[in-house]
Amino acid sequence: MSAATAAYAELERRFRRLANIGGASSVLHWDWATMMPEGGANARSDQLAELSVISHELITDPRLDELLGRAESETRALDDWQRANLREMRHRQRHAAGVPPDLVEALSKASAKCEMVWREAKPKGDFKAFAESFTPLLGLVREKAAAKGAALGLAPYDALIDAFDPGYTVKEIDRIFAELEAFLPNVLARALARQDQLPQPLKLEGRFPIPAQRALAEQLMGRLGFEFAHGRLDVSLHPFCGGVPEDVRITTRYAESGFASALMAVLHETGHALYERGLPEAWRLQPVGEARGMSVHESQSLLIEMQACRSLEFLAFAAPLIREAFQAHAPVDGAAFEPANLYAHSIRVKADFIRVDADEVTYPFHILLRYRLEKDLLSGALKVADLPDAWNAGMKRHLGIVPPSATLGCLQDIHWTGGDLGYFPSYTLGAMTAAQLFDAAKRAELDLLPGIARGDFAPLLGWLRRNVHGLGSLYDSRELVTRATGKPLDPLVFKAHLERRYLG
Amino acid sequence: MSAATAAYAELERRFRRLANIGGASSVLHWDWATMMPEGGANARSDQLAELSVISHELITDPRLDELLGRAESETRALDDWQRANLREMRHRQRHAAGVPPDLVEALSKASAKCEMVWREAKPKGDFKAFAESFTPLLGLVREKAAAKGAALGLAPYDALIDAFDPGYTVKEIDRIFAELEAFLPNVLARALARQDQLPQPLKLEGRFPIPAQRALAEQLMGRLGFEFAHGRLDVSLHPFCGGVPEDVRITTRYAESGFASALMAVLHETGHALYERGLPEAWRLQPVGEARGMSVHESQSLLIEMQACRSLEFLAFAAPLIREAFQAHAPVDGAAFEPANLYAHSIRVKADFIRVDADEVTYPFHILLRYRLEKDLLSGALKVADLPDAWNAGMKRHLGIVPPSATLGCLQDIHWTGGDLGYFPSYTLGAMTAAQLFDAAKRAELDLLPGIARGDFAPLLGWLRRNVHGLGSLYDSRELVTRATGKPLDPLVFKAHLERRYLG
Repeated sequence: MSAATAAYAELERRFRRLANIGGASSVLHWDWATMMPEGGANARSDQLAELSVISHELITDPRLDELLGRAESETRALDDWQRANLREMRHRQRHAAGVPPDLVEALSKASAKCEMVWREAKPKGDFKAFAESFTPLLGLVREKAAAKGAALGLAPYDALIDAFDPGYTVKEIDRIFAELEAFLPNVLARALARQDQLPQPLKLEGRFPIPAQRALAEQLMGRLGFEFAHGRLDVSLHPFCGGVPEDVRITTRYAESGFASALMAVLHETGHALYERGLPEAWRLQPVGEARGMSVHESQSLLIEMQACRSLEFLAFAAPLIREAFQAHAPVDGAAFEPANLYAHSIRVKADFIRVDADEVTYPFHILLRYRLEKDLLSGALKVADLPDAWNAGMKRHLGIVPPSATLGCLQDIHWTGGDLGYFPSYTLGAMTAAQLFDAAKRAELDLLPGIARGDFAPLLGWLRRNVHGLGSLYDSRELVTRATGKPLDPLVFKAHLERRYLG
Repeated sequence: MSAATAAYAELERRFRRLANIGGASSVLHWDWATMMPEGGANARSDQLAELSVISHELITDPRLDELLGRAESETRALDDWQRANLREMRHRQRHAAGVPPDLVEALSKASAKCEMVWREAKPKGDFKAFAESFTPLLGLVREKAAAKGAALGLAPYDALIDAFDPGYTVKEIDRIFAELEAFLPNVLARALARQDQLPQPLKLEGRFPIPAQRALAEQLMGRLGFEFAHGRLDVSLHPFCGGVPEDVRITTRYAESGFASALMAVLHETGHALYERGLPEAWRLQPVGEARGMSVHESQSLLIEMQACRSLEFLAFAAPLIREAFQAHAPVDGAAFEPANLYAHSIRVKADFIRVDADEVTYPFHILLRYRLEKDLLSGALKVADLPDAWNAGMKRHLGIVPPSATLGCLQDIHWTGGDLGYFPSYTLGAMTAAQLFDAAKRAELDLLPGIARGDFAPLLGWLRRNVHGLGSLYDSRELVTRATGKPLDPLVFKAHLERRYLG
């Protein structure tokens, strides 16, 4: 074994350790959001901060940098996966190397604190209370962005984006979002006009007991390919997908007055879960075995939720199961619970306040708003105190509505409370990627839509396993999309999808 | 600040890190036992092993040994708590130092595997399957015991006991257990003879739905002082208490056919939880701030379960709550659900197979059996393959009964599957300690029993906080018991308790 090969083997060992610590943190985060009593927050915050610091120490060990150098000096003995693994290792090491350990610990604790404050402040719409813990957190995020930017040779916001979505930059996102903004207002206006001319969908009246919603959700998850021997469904304030590929944990939140919102959240998170579960087993615990970044991750959730499940085919399959789930509590025998009416609900367009409940035509406006605000928060062009006004002005401009409270406005999302600036663009990049991947999958698998209509998701899942899930981080996002669909991300495919569904 | 004081301060920092990693592991263990889908076991085992190895690296860092030496060289500037903290730090460091890191990792993984195999093998009574994963685990435990023993100057089994219950040795335990065995067979024979002369308790008939059992359990936990802002009650195969003092998590298991076993397990674990929660806040995350060892820990659970709750006073308070909980499903208005009959059930003596369901007269025999068997397993005098026969012979000798299957025999407990040899004696040492502490508490707090009868546990909890919980590991077990009760552990106090309750 050459010195370079030996160095590479040692790197795999070290990154396996890092992945195990990351997996432990992930489960502890899940527990925080689903199980932990509120009095446990400080202790948990200390535990998570400690694990962050340990990971940071391991990855910034000067010896690891040397090992990377030695392995990189001679890569002929490595295969494609190993070379990609080495590239991903270096990417992580460079991201960590710029950030001092004290800052890692301070960020971990400040974000845990900010989230706890947010949990109380959000329902009250108490922006002032939130701002008091968000302002110092933002200061730390700014320090991190500057430090990473300096180390990576990137602008601060680009350095944050690069951690979530390697390769994307403000320049590239601005170009894509400009294309999007060129057609989206027009699509929205026409979709609303067309919708006004159609009859209103029939109301889905009834009571939808939570155990019945949960059973239905689990049934549909199972049909989509979620393995309950390797995962769970629980409840949290904000739906998410956590855990590790062997133990993927998704969440939703329920209301008895309606089932659609909780169910769509489950289907969305199931898309994330299928991605995690389908990552290449042979590369478990190695960087190249992990998901390709957040826009690809969101493409998988949105592909399942928006492309596959908000379709007439899916609802033809699901309607009988929905009726069966709620027959004791709702008048399910009428036309309201027929596929056509469920479909009309699922593609209803409405300018509204809450991002996670938004339809796919208005959704990108929510992202454009957050993207611009967080850039300005990071640069200092926008003061925290001015965020509510800026938020409301943006909502007015994009969607013509103004939230009556911060609860329905700038306090609605969890991301900034965790210091996660740079994440939001992934949602809309993901929505566009989803449209493009689904379009290619449908063309490659002629039985894909008929399969969905009969509850057989194997053709879809098989295509995703081969073209996305099973590839881990072997390719960058651009190459992954190009290989799967024949071209890089093209907003016009998303436009065509919207036109077909909303103007057709 | 002197070099010694500086060294002590750095040690506190390092042990805080260790405590945070320990807390993270504890929550991950809880999740393993309560929430984790079975397919997550391998990944979790890797995560826990990684955290064990990291802790081991931190505590065996040669620099930590130097810091201990420097701090120990000059302790005048330290107060009593700091000095005790330093002593506990050294105790842990010495325990860790003898064990090679590879062995730590191998043990962590082998015990996780053995537990998973046991979960399947136990209901089937499949000892052979269990033995296949237990035999290599036992080999590793033997290595650990030998290595620790060599480092600590103790016999191998003493080294294991010393980790759970610092200060106790085989010699001391043999002496105490010999005293116990001198009176226990006689007490058991007389208790059974007396019981035979009394009328049988009325059967507690009915169906006891799990949600009602759970609500009742939570109500009683709350009355005892359990804070739900700092803890949870869940379900696991084997009841336990886990988590951290800010977030104490206890478990039980329910059957609809009866409520007593699950409820008594909850009360038992609540005793552990109150101890954890009452540990000195000022010494959180430091060794001196942790519980004093397993016999004191078991004394707290058994004090609550056996001494406080299996009393006529407690049942006078609890009977109306029990009737209210089950009134829709059981004939609660008759004499069966009166305090006197509930009490008769709660002190029923019966030679039976299962330790965790045993009454307090037969319980010590279950421990004597396990204590002798595990000593022989460790020394090699008993082969794993011969364990079922040796178990059955011991049951025959002590209790006159032979389990019909390994499910009800040597596969019933979880401890050995985790490699935890040396733990079992703590239960009986704990039972005796509980009797002695409760006896002293009753004499010091005249309102203690009247308080329990009206559901006011403040006098009891106050005494425990002052004399046990709030002292953490300031004193060793012997001194703790002596300070609280006026003398070291004396089996005759336990004898007097049994005579009063079972022969009175």
